[in-house]
Amino acid sequence: MSAQVDFPSPTRPISETPLRYGVIIYPGYQALDIFGPLDALNTLSLYFPLQLSVIAQTLDPVSTKPPGSLGNLAADFGQTIIPTHTFDTAPPVDVLIVPGGIGNRDPKNVEAAIAYVAKVYPTLQYLVTVCTGSGMAAEAGVLDGRRATTNKRAWARTTQLRPQVHWEAHARWVVDGNIWTSSGVSAGLDVIFAFMGEVYGEEVATAIANFLEYERHMDASWDPYAGLYGLA
Amino acid sequence: MSAQVDFPSPTRPISETPLRYGVIIYPGYQALDIFGPLDALNTLSLYFPLQLSVIAQTLDPVSTKPPGSLGNLAADFGQTIIPTHTFDTAPPVDVLIVPGGIGNRDPKNVEAAIAYVAKVYPTLQYLVTVCTGSGMAAEAGVLDGRRATTNKRAWARTTQLRPQVHWEAHARWVVDGNIWTSSGVSAGLDVIFAFMGEVYGEEVATAIANFLEYERHMDASWDPYAGLYGLA
Repeated sequence: MSAQVDFPSPTRPISETPLRYGVIIYPGYQALDIFGPLDALNTLSLYFPLQLSVIAQTLDPVSTKPPGSLGNLAADFGQTIIPTHTFDTAPPVDVLIVPGGIGNRDPKNVEAAIAYVAKVYPTLQYLVTVCTGSGMAAEAGVLDGRRATTNKRAWARTTQLRPQVHWEAHARWVVDGNIWTSSGVSAGLDVIFAFMGEVYGEEVATAIANFLEYERHMDASWDPYAGLYGLA
Repeated sequence: MSAQVDFPSPTRPISETPLRYGVIIYPGYQALDIFGPLDALNTLSLYFPLQLSVIAQTLDPVSTKPPGSLGNLAADFGQTIIPTHTFDTAPPVDVLIVPGGIGNRDPKNVEAAIAYVAKVYPTLQYLVTVCTGSGMAAEAGVLDGRRATTNKRAWARTTQLRPQVHWEAHARWVVDGNIWTSSGVSAGLDVIFAFMGEVYGEEVATAIANFLEYERHMDASWDPYAGLYGLA
């Protein structure tokens, strides 16, 4: 990989940075919730020895298409990806990414994922949620007493899942301790670059954002969608 | 889908809009090149009866991980998706999306995809390329004499593939006839929303961008990356 020559070094020795990632998927997750962060990390993995586990309830392929009546029965539009591990077989990970999506509106569809978050959280270095993925982390109990945000269009439905969380309506992303929660869908790009800046260094984050030709929102409080959806 | 109630109607009768989409994948495609546009279209498919074919050389699962020495052998980081059709079995599509990615640096890896673009282009309503996907469309011969753009970091390598194309260095996206080409990676989000605005109406594009909490670049000439990578 000749590109490696010009790539900035992390601010800490690489062996002291998180290298083992996991992402949860379930039927009807929102594709960009994971593929924003993962595309940035795929690109980082050209330079750093990152590992990824794609974790689901079973090893069966998982579609972005919302199951049954949660979706549009007149459409046939989705992408199917293959898990590498189940919630029972997943190896230890340093960073876990939890996406939202219409699929989590059916509790039965995500109860195993939520149980996995509750079980594994004490072993993580970091938890990163995108969109209504923070509702699943909240239901796992790991956000109690913490500040967090979520999708603004699905605000009422998501925040009522767990009033013990200090939900912040006006935020692109929120960091509390080792948990990074972000707003809806495309906010996953901004939170992963902020995270990358924090744990590997701002030069690394900038290099990857430039590779993706992505203009980051750098201000965690940038959020026109809170107002658009009538929140405080 | 109760959300359907508030969704704007397309500016043309829906039966006169493109509804059949196809996306090409190959080993080492860039994930966000497709999952930016597809996430927007996945969301649109909650309201419109869209169909998607995921088209590859064979029905074997396809990883984002660049094959062999194109990637980083010290990393194990990628996502694997399942094609629905091969280049030989794909049904007719109205709109074809062609992504870039490190995988297309090996001509053998994409020669079947390029042949498919050449074969199918006369039957398409629209061709949309992201990143170095325009290099593949160029090699298929369908961009000869047209204006087009591509990834700015990979500019020299990509544009030399086909000098018969009028390559535009300073552009987020370019439309020439029924071909929409875009700049690197995240530009796929901006081009799909511009496309959606053109073919379904600006209100539809705005509704989907707001669903994704995505702040679009609306100006096709916005392009700080041309300067960043030393282009005119």
